[in-house]
Amino acid sequence: MDHDLEQRGPVQTWLTHPHHDGSALYVSDLTPRLGDTVTVWLRVPSEMPLDHVHARITPDAEQSFVKAVVDAVRSSDLETWWRADLVCHNPVTRYRFILAGGPTRYAWLNATGLHLRDVPDVSDFRLVAHDAPPPAWAADAVVYQVFPDRFAKSTAAARRRTRPDWAVPARWSDPVVPRDSKQDGIGRQFYGGDLDGIVEHLDHVDELGATTVYLTPFFPGRSNHRYDAATFTAVDPFLGGEAALRRLTDAAHARGMKVMGDFTTNHTGSSHEWFIAAQASLTAPEREFYFWQTRRRYIAWLGVRSLPKLNYDSTALRERVFDDPEGVVRKWLGPAANLDGWRVDVANMTGRQGAQDLNHEIAALMRDAVADANPDALLVGEHTNDYSDDVPGDGWHGVMNYAGFAKPVWTWLCDPRSAPDFLGSPVLVPRLGGEAVVETMRDFASHISWQALTSSFNLVGSHDTTRIRTLVGPDSRLVDAAAGLLLTMPSIPMFTYGDEIGMEGTFGEDGRRPMPWDQRRWDHRILAAYRDLIRVRRESTALRHGGLRWVYAADDVIVYLRETADQVALVHVARGAYAPVSLDARLLPGIEAGRTAYGQDVVVGAGSITLTAQGPGVGIRIWVPTPHRAPRRSRARRDQGT
Amino acid sequence: MDHDLEQRGPVQTWLTHPHHDGSALYVSDLTPRLGDTVTVWLRVPSEMPLDHVHARITPDAEQSFVKAVVDAVRSSDLETWWRADLVCHNPVTRYRFILAGGPTRYAWLNATGLHLRDVPDVSDFRLVAHDAPPPAWAADAVVYQVFPDRFAKSTAAARRRTRPDWAVPARWSDPVVPRDSKQDGIGRQFYGGDLDGIVEHLDHVDELGATTVYLTPFFPGRSNHRYDAATFTAVDPFLGGEAALRRLTDAAHARGMKVMGDFTTNHTGSSHEWFIAAQASLTAPEREFYFWQTRRRYIAWLGVRSLPKLNYDSTALRERVFDDPEGVVRKWLGPAANLDGWRVDVANMTGRQGAQDLNHEIAALMRDAVADANPDALLVGEHTNDYSDDVPGDGWHGVMNYAGFAKPVWTWLCDPRSAPDFLGSPVLVPRLGGEAVVETMRDFASHISWQALTSSFNLVGSHDTTRIRTLVGPDSRLVDAAAGLLLTMPSIPMFTYGDEIGMEGTFGEDGRRPMPWDQRRWDHRILAAYRDLIRVRRESTALRHGGLRWVYAADDVIVYLRETADQVALVHVARGAYAPVSLDARLLPGIEAGRTAYGQDVVVGAGSITLTAQGPGVGIRIWVPTPHRAPRRSRARRDQGT
Repeated sequence: MDHDLEQRGPVQTWLTHPHHDGSALYVSDLTPRLGDTVTVWLRVPSEMPLDHVHARITPDAEQSFVKAVVDAVRSSDLETWWRADLVCHNPVTRYRFILAGGPTRYAWLNATGLHLRDVPDVSDFRLVAHDAPPPAWAADAVVYQVFPDRFAKSTAAARRRTRPDWAVPARWSDPVVPRDSKQDGIGRQFYGGDLDGIVEHLDHVDELGATTVYLTPFFPGRSNHRYDAATFTAVDPFLGGEAALRRLTDAAHARGMKVMGDFTTNHTGSSHEWFIAAQASLTAPEREFYFWQTRRRYIAWLGVRSLPKLNYDSTALRERVFDDPEGVVRKWLGPAANLDGWRVDVANMTGRQGAQDLNHEIAALMRDAVADANPDALLVGEHTNDYSDDVPGDGWHGVMNYAGFAKPVWTWLCDPRSAPDFLGSPVLVPRLGGEAVVETMRDFASHISWQALTSSFNLVGSHDTTRIRTLVGPDSRLVDAAAGLLLTMPSIPMFTYGDEIGMEGTFGEDGRRPMPWDQRRWDHRILAAYRDLIRVRRESTALRHGGLRWVYAADDVIVYLRETADQVALVHVARGAYAPVSLDARLLPGIEAGRTAYGQDVVVGAGSITLTAQGPGVGIRIWVPTPHRAPRRSRARRDQGT
Repeated sequence: MDHDLEQRGPVQTWLTHPHHDGSALYVSDLTPRLGDTVTVWLRVPSEMPLDHVHARITPDAEQSFVKAVVDAVRSSDLETWWRADLVCHNPVTRYRFILAGGPTRYAWLNATGLHLRDVPDVSDFRLVAHDAPPPAWAADAVVYQVFPDRFAKSTAAARRRTRPDWAVPARWSDPVVPRDSKQDGIGRQFYGGDLDGIVEHLDHVDELGATTVYLTPFFPGRSNHRYDAATFTAVDPFLGGEAALRRLTDAAHARGMKVMGDFTTNHTGSSHEWFIAAQASLTAPEREFYFWQTRRRYIAWLGVRSLPKLNYDSTALRERVFDDPEGVVRKWLGPAANLDGWRVDVANMTGRQGAQDLNHEIAALMRDAVADANPDALLVGEHTNDYSDDVPGDGWHGVMNYAGFAKPVWTWLCDPRSAPDFLGSPVLVPRLGGEAVVETMRDFASHISWQALTSSFNLVGSHDTTRIRTLVGPDSRLVDAAAGLLLTMPSIPMFTYGDEIGMEGTFGEDGRRPMPWDQRRWDHRILAAYRDLIRVRRESTALRHGGLRWVYAADDVIVYLRETADQVALVHVARGAYAPVSLDARLLPGIEAGRTAYGQDVVVGAGSITLTAQGPGVGIRIWVPTPHRAPRRSRARRDQGT
């Protein structure tokens, strides 16, 4: 039994493996409609001559096989491309390939690679034909997360003397006090950043190259994070109110940028007008919006009394949230603010409570409402752990990819001395090798469609976590490695204001420090890395739209290809010096004519490509693939014939 | 990074791995109710001293950790047992363990074993608190599948001269003609077996040790398989009618045996009274029971026109099938026949058609109807491929385990010269090594709850497949190996009439040969093997109720433990001679006092247990585990104290 080709084996062989991913290079239509026929391609190295290839699909959950044919136009002496036409009989068409003959004799190829035995369907590729697919701009976006109280104070706000009644005032230069000794809980320290402050500093975001500002909540609440909304119909006046939000979206749109909001579907604040009405009267229409255990006791998010959980069993609540043109979902996507999408807070718990599980139903309702209010809007759900079951394709376009990206990156780059205990885990994030990181990333990515993966936010930190600069420890070049992964992988890169200047923070609250606008406090080396990496991504179709082909992984280095029909990017990311790695240059046709787009380049030798690094960093080489539309000889013949 | 303990590594180490499975040895309540607290245990070898252990659960899809404590009563000098109390907050509670410290430092244990990196939740263990759990008898059942036309002809039927109008008459000694040249399609050859024929031969089934007769359909149709029901309200008169069915269940019940029926939820026959009414009139109430593309065109199962697909969007259909006391589900579980459960044909496709997916809803409706009509009835759905998503715990109690049992067994035991092309696969079943077989079995089992796994039918063949005797090729001892796996693994063993006498058949139709009652045509060696293996299972609590701990796998041998608190069974199954395998006897306390329950025994040496075989076969050793309730010394002290 030859296990050499199984991806658990030596990683050096990945480049010689058959490959498919859900990207445009291998799939004729990334947003098909029900009933459409979609062509999928599989590339197989010539060293692996096969008897035949079939795509296996499971229409109505019964397995069915579609014979693949050799695509002569795409095939070359290096590799054979097989093509199969799949009908989207169901909204989601799972598919994989079976490879008969050749050295492996019997092999399945799914999204975790090659398997020489039968495996379950969970890692099958997926075509998604649901309505309201993600907007096209999402694939090109670079998202900059702003926590409004901490990003920037406008000139007007700086003059303001008032503050919310719950607030503990802080000057911009004050340190964050993660736990407020005077009050129950954290989150009352009020710095007074506002939406016009963002407008005034939009240059910074724009020059950095970010395309989209994602704002944590702008609704009034009784905390600096505002995840405890008191209403959904107004913008917090301390942020400048509705007019300021409109000024921000107008200013962003004028630059070709987008703005996304943040709405908590799972709960409101206890000061929310609905909850106050519900508490006041058993007959209030809002009473059924919440879960009542007794006359006064209610279910709250993780038991936090200020965050009563919403009960979507209520048709009236669904109407208020999703159908009402003045309701939260539609209003802010409409003329009131022209938002370009929603990030959904606590998306994973939404609609779930004991025996009730309405999560998918609510996500689908929200997607429909979003698409109806703004067909070009993006919907991304927060998911702090395994999202596999929660992105079937008809709800959130994507998720915040903590489980399949942030966490594996942390396990690779964290300094054991500053390892975080993410979201209450009793075990600190461990330090693992690159192979484990790749396997975890691949496992999670394999459970969702390419469409959902590329509509998800990749991140190496957020307002809820340790700052990446703190996580990696003393060597700031590890931030480059993190940013390198973030900005060269599929999915939408998202980072938090200040990451780009090396801002620190040992955990979520501590990371929400005010953005220092005194540039002497910035790490300009890190800033340059972010700016350059963002630019490289924005200039490269391969990095934005390419497939993902893992090439190599070892303890200290991860290497992969991003590929479109017209461009290839070879990325190597190191967390430290690593032994040189040689790749067969024949398998990367055109690489010799490529250019170094970022960092440490590869060494192009006679027939081989050598990768190496002396320390943490990122190298990106980009080239135009030598047309592989036909074997050289036959193309030569064709050329002669014309 | 130490990968030695990862289960992908050397298989010899499985016995020294931490272990949990969902069985009673490790779970305090296999059928909890919502809100219950369930204790789960994890055993960890003493060589793996840990800092701490937590169970991780995901209530409402948010991750949460429960600290485990050392269970001093269960722990010994050999191993530490950790205990955690989990609350069933949702109907399904997924859980896994995180092991901090020790040689692995950071390790997850889920149902595929130990992982030294983060992995998705799909293989988490599952507690299921849904209503109407599987009946207790299921765990003790051995199911004998009868195809009524081919099992036995009663004395009365032998005298009958009539036959159905569609039938091509055959004498009992005639060969099966798999394709009927005169008619469109197969399945019209009519041998005339009937229900009283089963009654007359119930001795055979009973003496064999099978506890449950599962009948393929008894409804009248227009084929010998009767999966094209013409009505659900009657038993085919050619089978003896309702009275004969009642005679059969009465006779079975008198022996303490059970009888299950077979109902196709997915479609009816085109001669069904509903379909005839639906075709006749656009205003017939039954019109909406089917999918109409035009006035006359309808959707049929895999395009077979005689099998129009049912449309469960129809409330009236749901009422007719599930609610009506005289409807198919309830009537036959009630006094009309007192059936003990249903096997559901084409369960996987039921309720699925294009954009419509009502499968889980229909399965749950059926489970409720079944439980209401007969709280002690079992519900098993046919699933010919990956059932992972379709046994969430509120629908079918279990499935026919083709994907996670039959297929891997076939890949291990099939003779390449008689490899089947199961259900239209364009690639013949390959021959793989034991390790691949174990990995595939473990992968599939890890996707469903222990409750669903043990309520599923394991099988090495059925009326739809190649007969196991034919599949394995010339050496009939490989049938013993197949039967050995079937009768010593978790799940309900099910086999098809005639397997026990070595009946042959190259594919489904060909395997539906009439049961030869001339015992000179039986393979008595195979019969003895079935009878003995069934007896051993029925006498062993470990084999019926024990957990499953994989011990070793190599190309030609698979070794595992089945364990309850009171009994351990060590099973080794070989497909050929294999190099002796030595196990550390200390890890199997009590084995030296065990007995050979079947076949080739192990060699108990000084400190080691050696397994070996000269050819295909099965060995089962059973013993009472040495009480491991406390380390010897401390128990001695306690004894002195009393």
